[in-house]
Parts: sequence; C-alpha cells; structure tokens
Amino acid sequence: MTLQDARTPENGANGDEKPQIGWHKGYVSGSRPDLRVPVRRVHLTNGKDVTLYDTSGPYTDPNIETDVRRGLAPLRENWIIGRGDTEEYSGRPLRPEDDGLKHTSPRGGLKNLDAVFPGRPRQPRRGREGAAVTQLAYAQRGEITTEMEYVALREKVTPEFVRDEIAAGRAVLPANVNHPEIEPMIIGKNFLVKVNANIGNSAVTSSIEEEVEKMTWATRWGADTVMDLSTGRNIHTTREWVLRNSPVPIGTVPLYQALEKVDGKAEELTWEIYKDTVIEQAEQGVDYMTVHAGVLLRYVPLTARRKTGIVSRGGSIMAAWCLAHHQESFLYTHFEELCEILASYDVTYSLGDGLRPGSIADANDEAQFAELRTLGELNTIAKRHGVQTMIEGPGHVPMHKIKENIDLQQEICEEAPFYTLGPLTTDIAPAYDHITSGIGAAMIAWWGTAMLCYVTPKEHLGLPDRDDVKTGVITYKIAAHAADLAKGHPGAQEWDDALSDARFEFRWEDQFNLALDPDTARAFHDATLPAEPAKTAHFCSMCGPKFCSMKISQSITERFGGDEGSTPEEIEAGMLEKSREFAESGNRVYLPLAN
Amino acid sequence: MTLQDARTPENGANGDEKPQIGWHKGYVSGSRPDLRVPVRRVHLTNGKDVTLYDTSGPYTDPNIETDVRRGLAPLRENWIIGRGDTEEYSGRPLRPEDDGLKHTSPRGGLKNLDAVFPGRPRQPRRGREGAAVTQLAYAQRGEITTEMEYVALREKVTPEFVRDEIAAGRAVLPANVNHPEIEPMIIGKNFLVKVNANIGNSAVTSSIEEEVEKMTWATRWGADTVMDLSTGRNIHTTREWVLRNSPVPIGTVPLYQALEKVDGKAEELTWEIYKDTVIEQAEQGVDYMTVHAGVLLRYVPLTARRKTGIVSRGGSIMAAWCLAHHQESFLYTHFEELCEILASYDVTYSLGDGLRPGSIADANDEAQFAELRTLGELNTIAKRHGVQTMIEGPGHVPMHKIKENIDLQQEICEEAPFYTLGPLTTDIAPAYDHITSGIGAAMIAWWGTAMLCYVTPKEHLGLPDRDDVKTGVITYKIAAHAADLAKGHPGAQEWDDALSDARFEFRWEDQFNLALDPDTARAFHDATLPAEPAKTAHFCSMCGPKFCSMKISQSITERFGGDEGSTPEEIEAGMLEKSREFAESGNRVYLPLAN
Repeated sequence: MTLQDARTPENGANGDEKPQIGWHKGYVSGSRPDLRVPVRRVHLTNGKDVTLYDTSGPYTDPNIETDVRRGLAPLRENWIIGRGDTEEYSGRPLRPEDDGLKHTSPRGGLKNLDAVFPGRPRQPRRGREGAAVTQLAYAQRGEITTEMEYVALREKVTPEFVRDEIAAGRAVLPANVNHPEIEPMIIGKNFLVKVNANIGNSAVTSSIEEEVEKMTWATRWGADTVMDLSTGRNIHTTREWVLRNSPVPIGTVPLYQALEKVDGKAEELTWEIYKDTVIEQAEQGVDYMTVHAGVLLRYVPLTARRKTGIVSRGGSIMAAWCLAHHQESFLYTHFEELCEILASYDVTYSLGDGLRPGSIADANDEAQFAELRTLGELNTIAKRHGVQTMIEGPGHVPMHKIKENIDLQQEICEEAPFYTLGPLTTDIAPAYDHITSGIGAAMIAWWGTAMLCYVTPKEHLGLPDRDDVKTGVITYKIAAHAADLAKGHPGAQEWDDALSDARFEFRWEDQFNLALDPDTARAFHDATLPAEPAKTAHFCSMCGPKFCSMKISQSITERFGGDEGSTPEEIEAGMLEKSREFAESGNRVYLPLAN
Repeated sequence: MTLQDARTPENGANGDEKPQIGWHKGYVSGSRPDLRVPVRRVHLTNGKDVTLYDTSGPYTDPNIETDVRRGLAPLRENWIIGRGDTEEYSGRPLRPEDDGLKHTSPRGGLKNLDAVFPGRPRQPRRGREGAAVTQLAYAQRGEITTEMEYVALREKVTPEFVRDEIAAGRAVLPANVNHPEIEPMIIGKNFLVKVNANIGNSAVTSSIEEEVEKMTWATRWGADTVMDLSTGRNIHTTREWVLRNSPVPIGTVPLYQALEKVDGKAEELTWEIYKDTVIEQAEQGVDYMTVHAGVLLRYVPLTARRKTGIVSRGGSIMAAWCLAHHQESFLYTHFEELCEILASYDVTYSLGDGLRPGSIADANDEAQFAELRTLGELNTIAKRHGVQTMIEGPGHVPMHKIKENIDLQQEICEEAPFYTLGPLTTDIAPAYDHITSGIGAAMIAWWGTAMLCYVTPKEHLGLPDRDDVKTGVITYKIAAHAADLAKGHPGAQEWDDALSDARFEFRWEDQFNLALDPDTARAFHDATLPAEPAKTAHFCSMCGPKFCSMKISQSITERFGGDEGSTPEEIEAGMLEKSREFAESGNRVYLPLAN
C-alpha cells in the first residue's frame, strides 16, 4: 500500500466548512486506481506521523470541490457495474404521498423531484434475476469484493479476514447498490467499534438543509453511519439529499414513512404499503433498514405492567397494529418476502428492538428478551436469504444488567453484530443522557457490541442541534475507542500513546491535533494561557511553572531511564551515580523554562 | 424522625445565587433539636413527594441568611464541646510564609488574618492529653456520636450500622474538631457513592473569592467533599475563607503549601516544615489530608521508563526529595508521628497515590502497585493510631484493567474506602476528560470505590471555571448514582422510578424538578417547545403529536394492565376483549391531546 497526501489545508483559510484543525487528509491506495482509502494524517512536530481512521468524506479534501446540490461522486459505481450482476430498471413511480403530501393537497400534488434535488439523475439498480448481489452472498461464495478490500485497508486487516467475518454473519458491510457514494465500512465485533448518529426532522421542527448539514457535521466528527429518522413532510426529498451527499451508509426506519402514508393511523398500515415504501427507499439507496419484526402479538401484553411501556416508535406502531387487527405482525408474517427485496439491493437488516426498556425499572424483562429470541430466529432466516443482518439492542439498563444483554444476544443471534442505543445507566439526568449512556455504551462495546447508536444531550427533551450532534458523536467516539482499548484491538493504543507522549513532552500543538476534538482542546488551553508562546511552554496552567510534575518526572526519566536493556542492578547503580550528579547540579529538579 | 420544610423559594425570585429549581429544602430531625439533616424534597404534581440527599448546605435554605464574610454557623460546636475530650489552646502563631509571602516581602509581612477573613474569631481545639477524639476511636469504643446519628439519617441506615462500618475501617466520617460548620457525611462502599470536587487557585490565575464561590457552586450541584488545592499566594487565607463557608468536609495536600514555604525547592523540604504546615492546616479545620507517604525511594526508578513518568504533583515532589537526599521519604519515616498529630484533631488520612498512571500505557504497572502495597501497610498503622483512613487511586486505566485496581486495593488495604480520580479510560479526548473518566468512575464505583474525585472538561488543559465545575460535578453524580443502582443500593432506584413515571405520564415539570440539573433540562425542552402549554402537552418535540410512542404505550397499559394479581390467562382473555373494544372505539391509539 502507498500513502498519498492531499494538499495541506491552510488553518483557518477555509471558512466555516473546514474547521481549523491541523490534520491532513491522506489516502491509502489499494489494488486498483479508484481504490483510495481516506485517512487522517497528523504530522507531529517531532517529525513523526500518526495515521487515524477518517469518516469525514470528500468534504475535508481541499482537492475536491463538493456541492450539496450535485451530490458526491459515485465512488463505487464502476465496482458495482463491473460485477455484472445488477441491472438498471425504470423504478417505482414517485407519488405525492412519498413526500407526505395528500392526493388532494392544495399544493397540487408531487413536485418534480429532479427539480427538488437537482443532482445527477440515475435509474435505480437491483440484482439481476437469480443473482445474489449482497456482500454476504459474495463472501459465502469466497469472493473478495473491492468493498471488502477497501475496509481491509481501513481496518488494517487482511481482505480474507474481512470476507470470513462477513461470511460467518459476524460482520456486515452495509452498501446498497443504489448508494455508490459511500466509502465502505464494516460493522462487527472483531473490527473497530463504530458509532451511528441519528438525524431527522419531525412534524414539529427542522428543515432539509439542516438535516444534510447535520449529516456532514456528524461524519466530520467521526460518525461511521447516519440514520435518517425524518417524519412528516418532505421525507422522500430529505432522504434523497442526505443519500446523495453522504459518504457513510444511511439507515432508516421505513415504518415511519409508511405510517405517514396512512395519515398516522397505525391500524390502516398494510403489508403492501410497507413493502412499497421499502422498495421506494431501497431504490434511493438506503443501506440498512430498521425492521421491528420481533414485536409479536403475544408479546404486547408483557409490556402492560412496565413502568414506561413501549418506548420504541416502531415497536409501539406495530403493537398498535397487532392489537387493532388481533393478528400477527405483517413484518413477521411477510419476513421472507422482505428478505428477497432487501437481498436484491443489498440492503442490510437492522432488526429493531421494539420492546427495548425505556427505564431502569424495565431493563432485561420478559418482553425484551422474548423479542430478542424472535430476532434470533429472524436473523437465521435473513442469513439464509443472503441478507446481511445486525441486531438492535437497548435502551435503559443499569450497569450490572448490561453484560447479560450482549451475552444473550451473541448466543441467540449467532454472533450477528449487536447495535445498541447506549444503554443509559440511569434515568435521573435528562440533559446529560449522552453521559448516562456513554458509560453503558463503552461497557457493552467492550463486551462485544459492534456499533453504538449515539445519544445527544437533548435525548428525552428535544431535537438535537448542531452542537448536540457534535457532543453526541464525540462522546460516543470516546466510548468506542475506550472499548477498542479494552478489547486489546491491535493498534488502538497507538493513538493514546502518541497523545500521551505529546503531553509528557509539552508538545501542545501535537496534543491538540491528536485530540478527538482539536478545536475545543485548543480553545480550553487558550482560555487560561492565550499567548502563542504558551503553546510551546514547558508547563501548563494547572500547576504553573514551579510545581509542574511533568518537569520533575522528565528529569527522573533523564536521570534513571538508562537504555532499554538495562538490568534492575544497572538501573540501581545508575541511580546512585545520578543522585550524586543531582546534588552536584544544585538539586534543581526544575529546568529553566524554554520560553 | 419528622420531616420539616423550609419556606418554599419562589421560582426565579432569588436571583443568581438561588437557581430557578423547583425543589424545596427540608430537614429530617434526629434525637436532639440541633440534629436536623437537610434533604431535597421534590413535590410532584401528582401529590407525591420524593426526598433526595442534599449537599448544598444552608445556602439553599431561604430561612437562613448566609454571609461569606461571617461564615456558616458552627453546627457541630456543641456536639464537640459536649464530649468534653477536647480543649482550646492558643495555637501556632501565624507567619508571613503561611500566605506565600517572604519574610522580606515589600508588602511588610503578614497582614492581620482576622481582618482578611473577618469572621468569628475562634481558638483552635485539639484532643486533650490521652484522649482519643476521632470518630474511629469512638466507634471502636462502641460510642455512637451525634455525627454518626446524623449520617445514619442521611443514608437511611441505623446508627449502629454506621458505627460498625467506621469501627471496621470500611468507612470514614471526615470531621476535624476545628471544622464545626460541616454537615457530617460518610464515605464507604456500603453507603451512597460520594463525589469530591477540586478547587484551588494556582500561581497563574484565580482569586480567593472565586475559590469560595466554586466551593458553594460545587456543593449546590452535589459535591460531597471539596479539596482546596491552592498553591501560591494567599494560600492560608483562601483556605480560611473556604473552611468557614463550607458545609462539606474540606481536603488539602499540605505538601503543596510546605513547598511554597521553601520557594518551590523540593530538596529544601524538611519534616519540621511539613509538620508545621500540617498543624497549621489542622488548626484551621481541614478534614482530610492527602499524604503521599507511599512514594518510597526504591520505587522512583520504576517510573523511569514510563510513558508519562510521575504525574502526581505530590508524588513528583517527594520523588525529587528522595533523589536529592538519597534518603527514604520523611513522610514515610515520620508516619507514626504524623498519625498522632492527625488523631488529635480527627483529621482523616487520604493516602495519596503519588505513582498513579498518567496514561493508558502506564496503567497497573509495577510502580503503581508497589506503592499500593505500601499504602496497605500505612493504612494498618494509621488505624492502630485511631486515624480514619482512605486510599487514593488512579488515574488513567483502560476499562479491562479497572477491576484489578479496586480488587487489589480492597484486599491490600483491608477494605479501607477507595477514593479514585476517574479513572480516565482513554487519553485521546482532552476537553472531554470528564467523560473519558466518568466511564471509568462509574465502573470502579460499581465494584466498590467509595468516593470519586471529579474531573472537569479542562483537565490537562487549564483551570476549571464555574461551568466546568458544574459539568464535572454533574458528570460524577451520574457515575456515582449509576454505581449505586448497579450495587443495588437500597432506595437508589426510587429516584429513577419517580423520574421515569413522570416521563411516561408527561409530567414535564416533575421530570425537570427530579433531574440532576433541572435548569438545563428545562432549557433544553423549551428550546424546541418554548410555550408554557408545551410543559403539560402529552407529547414532545422528538416525535410530535402523531408519532408518540408513549401515547400508544399508555393506551396498551390501559387496555391490558389489568390488576396486579392477574394470571397470564386472565391477561390473555382481557386482551381479546380489549381488542374488540379497541376496534369498536374506531381503532384510535392516539387519544385526543389534553392541550
């Protein structure tokens, strides 16, 4: 592999869209010219380089002009076409209700969607008759796709390892054939822990532009996937804008849109409306879909005596449908048909936990685990159809009940990737649920959860704004990386080591540039010691120049560090000698300040 | 016990010093009229009450006039005098260097401290010759002090249980006889997990008034103890102001002040200067002191090949002293004498972890655990002298290495309370170390740590301001409460249950008032749905009125909840019946909105 560098962005020269951070966009090349894996390269002041995983997409490459009205370049298009197993087709006709408009809307029905999203028109694509076009199908046939090679470079493992993990169902590589813009990524417990960020307007607030901006903002700070949970008006158009501009896989909950089409009346939902919505979204390029097929009629009464009932939107909609019809969920009864649809676009299942606990009191109860057992059955069925599958998890769970969740899920679902929301470890801190849940997220990821769905400070209170999205993503990147460390993930500690070296050697700029959030780290430092020389000062504002433990400690290292190969006896001998020198030098442990 | 209520503060009527929160100060009375334990009472809109632990002191009682220039009333004075085993004495004369001033200072030596802190003059007090006046000594003699009864009411346990835990050395009740202003509290693994907040000026920044305000601010948000880590000028005077105004135990690191007295030259420190400083601080009323007596000469070379050496200020000062003299630490060689001094004022030891790891790479290394074994020996000696003792712990530790820390500490230190800084679970997130460490803090507290030392967002970068102190305290209250839940602490879940009930029933005001931070929760809600009716609306901004899962779920509860005693068959029968009713009612799962 070779490492290429994009032109170094000038700090501060790129306006609001290019944050003032000192890292550079680079690429690792693979076996073909169009296989270039983006990395974040931090050039340290000591001449060393640190290469980090990068989710920010072409937006942080100063050599690439991006325009949200045209969308991103279709990176994977030639790979998909080259496989020769998919075909373009005319696609499902668009209808006013796709955008939440009534047939009788005074606005005159459907606007021209090409005008609404002015990007490159493209026919939808699907697997040819009889072709199995999912990454799972390729993996099971022993084929290493370009996508698999891409993620292997990204994760610093062999392509064969990637193929094995996907083939076993232990990992998914969400990549709808209609979303060629994505930079492939993988979700599985033997890879880096991933983070999902939710965006989405609602009936009450938000706009299309805001949602697209939240997506690019979230990925800039490290979101590996984004779920568009929009409801209400313009749902189709919002999704189109998000997909065409997203370098990461996009997930949705098709049930939300289906419910819009029946004016919010759960009992009027039908399999046909739902199926039509799934095809609509698959043609647009949605990479994974949450399907609450495990909410069975007989589980609904199990929630009746809970403290907080059913808190999943999808779960409560399906519960209401089952009650209204006193029939089994159509998602469950039509599951195999749904598998066939998802397989033809390579849409990945995210089997939803519609009965997840919404409070500490409800954690790990009968309703929750009954649904999980059903998700296990559905996982087996999905895999048989070649559909990649992950399993969603809770929710609100106190720390001592977390491990049971991941252990049970791994057992019941044959190690399919677990994808959890937190869990929140207490209910008492609305406005701080990124933290209550970051605690649980770190723990459950350590124990094997593959992807964490972020929680923002606005959880339970309102819709996240730009700052909330950033706070949520950073908090979850911390949880994910803490888990990578605890799992002993190869290479994970290099990042910590580089930052700690910089800290010990007072290389402030390196410390900022290696930080998850360089901007805030720099701003916090400058708040106490704003002057430029302070960034090279060999002390910091916590202790001041006289008390600095790092300085004292450095002089110990200099005096006793010896060579790597020293024996304890040599160190002890050196210690005596150095102690004499120490006295001779005037017993000064504080060296003169550099500035 | 009886419950009394302070006058209800009017929301918003008390200005900046009384935050606009809807709880009321109450008191639980004990066996004597002056034993009144403060509680936070939340009156819910459904007529129920929730009583929570309260650390905010007299400042939140509208019936009490507080004045930082006079200090708080000496709540415990009569208890201490009543025991008849202490005496007033003239005390150590104050000297210019106590405040970091030189003998030759152009400012003309020491100002009159009574003028600097204009509060009530008081002679220092100590145990009479031959009297053992520590809470540990009383407990071992089988005496239940008024302080023990106070914490029993606070923790909702029996006084006998409190006495047992203190007598066994499993808990400490820090309460210097010269700090009568405190509201007694207890630190031990069988009580609620506690949180310490650090304040302190440094040579570079901050003022006396700011430090006092940080203390009252930290306790308002839930800090159980406060450490004054001031260095530089006015160190004695700052501490006097903090102590006289603090309702919580105050901790210090006397070594910092001792070093000031020798102009920052570690090698010029002597046992005499240190001892004099300890007496100075004990006479002022410091409740617990960090003593880095476990940093032995032979351990210093163990740190030489670390990534970040010695990061503890106290640890590095003592290491430098040991090296300069090539002698064993005077804190270690004079430890028994130090015990006698601390015992005579009932100052509690916080045996410092001077060799704690400062990076993920250094966690659980030989240096760290060698020191811990020495702390174990010192703990046994301290207990023999009747001195209450807790043990400080790390630091930077990845999740998979946390449990070993608490397990070893509990074994080596005979279950003495563990008091840890975090630990931080990754090094990569400067500006978010309240979160990297909040994760580790929750886990180590679950496994038995008794008190958590908070970390603010400014850790590694600068000194915390008012907002940072609040964020640090709230984050650590989350960690502590999550641990209380995971430990199954009796009553802990009642708080979560009350809040989740309020959430499920859309009692927004109750949800805010029960929150750890009512102000921010309310502000976040209002940012999306500001109007007053929205606070009684039966939906929220995340889903809007149509999609609300809580509404759907409530209707399920109404339809299937049945009586507590229903059998599954009865529920099933009820379900069929209710399903019919559901259809007859027009299949509406959304009830009309109340507003």
